[in-house]
Amino acid sequence: ALAAPAIAQSMPKITWRCTSGFPKALDTIYGAAEVFAAAVNEATDGNFNIQVFAAGEIVGTLEALDAVSNGTVEMMHNCSYYFWGKDPTFGIGTGIPFGLNARMTNGWLYEGGGTDLLNEFYANYNTIAFPAGNTGAQMGGWFRKEINTLDDLKGLKFRIGGMGGKIIEKVGVVPQGIPGGDIYPALEKGAIDGAEWVGPYDDSKLGFNKVAPYYYYPGWWEGGVTVHNFINLEKWNELPKSYQAIVKSASALANSVMMARYDTLNPKALKEIAASGTQLRPYSQQILEACFDAATETYAELSAENATFKKVHDSYMGYRREGYLWQQLSEYNFDTFQMLQQRAGKL
Amino acid sequence: ALAAPAIAQSMPKITWRCTSGFPKALDTIYGAAEVFAAAVNEATDGNFNIQVFAAGEIVGTLEALDAVSNGTVEMMHNCSYYFWGKDPTFGIGTGIPFGLNARMTNGWLYEGGGTDLLNEFYANYNTIAFPAGNTGAQMGGWFRKEINTLDDLKGLKFRIGGMGGKIIEKVGVVPQGIPGGDIYPALEKGAIDGAEWVGPYDDSKLGFNKVAPYYYYPGWWEGGVTVHNFINLEKWNELPKSYQAIVKSASALANSVMMARYDTLNPKALKEIAASGTQLRPYSQQILEACFDAATETYAELSAENATFKKVHDSYMGYRREGYLWQQLSEYNFDTFQMLQQRAGKL
Repeated sequence: ALAAPAIAQSMPKITWRCTSGFPKALDTIYGAAEVFAAAVNEATDGNFNIQVFAAGEIVGTLEALDAVSNGTVEMMHNCSYYFWGKDPTFGIGTGIPFGLNARMTNGWLYEGGGTDLLNEFYANYNTIAFPAGNTGAQMGGWFRKEINTLDDLKGLKFRIGGMGGKIIEKVGVVPQGIPGGDIYPALEKGAIDGAEWVGPYDDSKLGFNKVAPYYYYPGWWEGGVTVHNFINLEKWNELPKSYQAIVKSASALANSVMMARYDTLNPKALKEIAASGTQLRPYSQQILEACFDAATETYAELSAENATFKKVHDSYMGYRREGYLWQQLSEYNFDTFQMLQQRAGKL
Repeated sequence: ALAAPAIAQSMPKITWRCTSGFPKALDTIYGAAEVFAAAVNEATDGNFNIQVFAAGEIVGTLEALDAVSNGTVEMMHNCSYYFWGKDPTFGIGTGIPFGLNARMTNGWLYEGGGTDLLNEFYANYNTIAFPAGNTGAQMGGWFRKEINTLDDLKGLKFRIGGMGGKIIEKVGVVPQGIPGGDIYPALEKGAIDGAEWVGPYDDSKLGFNKVAPYYYYPGWWEGGVTVHNFINLEKWNELPKSYQAIVKSASALANSVMMARYDTLNPKALKEIAASGTQLRPYSQQILEACFDAATETYAELSAENATFKKVHDSYMGYRREGYLWQQLSEYNFDTFQMLQQRAGKL
């Protein structure tokens, strides 16, 4: 028999299943997984075919990591911070309260050693991950009444995702873990006092402006939320080097496109929300400072008891310190001047 | 004879030459072209081999567009604004004074219709282009004396790239077109009064802090400078679809990595520059406002005489208006709070 040509070996037929942590309705986050899969498919002439499934179609958001670890699915497009209960280090991959903004997150992940550090940790869960989406700084949530002082937070029932719940608990809030689809009725009935989700575009799909008049900013617990492609480690190692390179580049494309999509869709949604009567409110400095201190305290506690968390956290927060030193100069002053022109109606 | 297997067709051996608009010493910008070429090479098992050449090795920075148009080289990694003399629309692809910041640039290019609009225009030059690098907001340049008022600008000889020269001329500056390597001696001898290049990391390589004591910010003419991969249109159309997809994804990777590299390298360089005795100075509001108005006036003039410029400019500036509406809310307030903590020594 003839030997197969070497070139044929390099484009094997492979089909993978990717479970998204999000519903199809979120064309932003779920859409980024589709952008990724399409880029891989096109780059391989359809030979490497990644099928994307919405959360719950195969496994739910919170079961997805186990499903990737044990090979039930080859990969997931998901936020690592859903798994911070297993180990708080999972929080850092997505971003932790008062952490890096979107641009610094990319700086840390691509060139600051972040991706290698995270993958050293993720290997314990038989996975490897690459950044594949960002929301930017999220909004700070919807409230049925105004929140001005720390006293206003005492006993407040607030739906919040990720590690933010652990921090905000320290200032008296009672965090509520409620899936996206159940937030609206809970807020409408007053079973909860407030809820955060993402930002104008995603939030308005869920109709929160109809049941809560106050919309706060900034979302200090989610300054640059990153979604990763998590891949089963054996499945990754079985890929030809060329497919591995394609996965990395296609993940970078999805990372940029998701951020771009939010930035393109959010302005219009924000205007519609404001036109519907929603009151935009900044969190007070008192609240922000108390939450910042609570976060710093929490990270010190976690670092004392978890060497892996400490190692990754030190790198991440070192990047924050250097990043804000630089970005407050030219970047911030450029934006500040432009925003003054915007308010003066000159843009 | 046997028909070649279909799969072999999809990975043809191709070698391209890519001329960078920059010298090898700039591991940031020139480095992004190498990141791109390596990603394409790996994704195709070495079958699509893109060789990167420094500016001047085959053609110079300013001759590179013609060389791509006529097929002397297959592609370049370069800033479009070097060619704004051919048509001011070339300015917009890189970014024009008081234009989009880096994040908005990506928003506009990837999801705001920017890339399609630009490629409609670039087709007239027998090229197609994809974003493949960003510097972020650059610094506002080095000066031998302080610049406080508009009067201080009159007759000032200032080295400046891109369309910024055309704008700053309106407020009395005499713009100087000097290649990077010739700036230092000109500044040392006082043949020019000031010069801008990029930012702390690149600038300190050229040693400007030794010959000019004042370092201004922000670089209002370069708020989010984008480098593109420009490809000869026939060469692009001859590529298999899979290679086209690989080029697009690898360009997105280079785009992210270049920004990440700047953000990782600039903080340390900034500290070293400050430690060397350099005085950091913000441009005054008077100067910024006069330059902003001069830019607005220039864009109106160009729009009146050039329909293509008007079409692309309207889209780009529409994105700026919407972008700053949204980013001044959560993103800006998140960063502002973090910078206050930075100044308080709490980061």
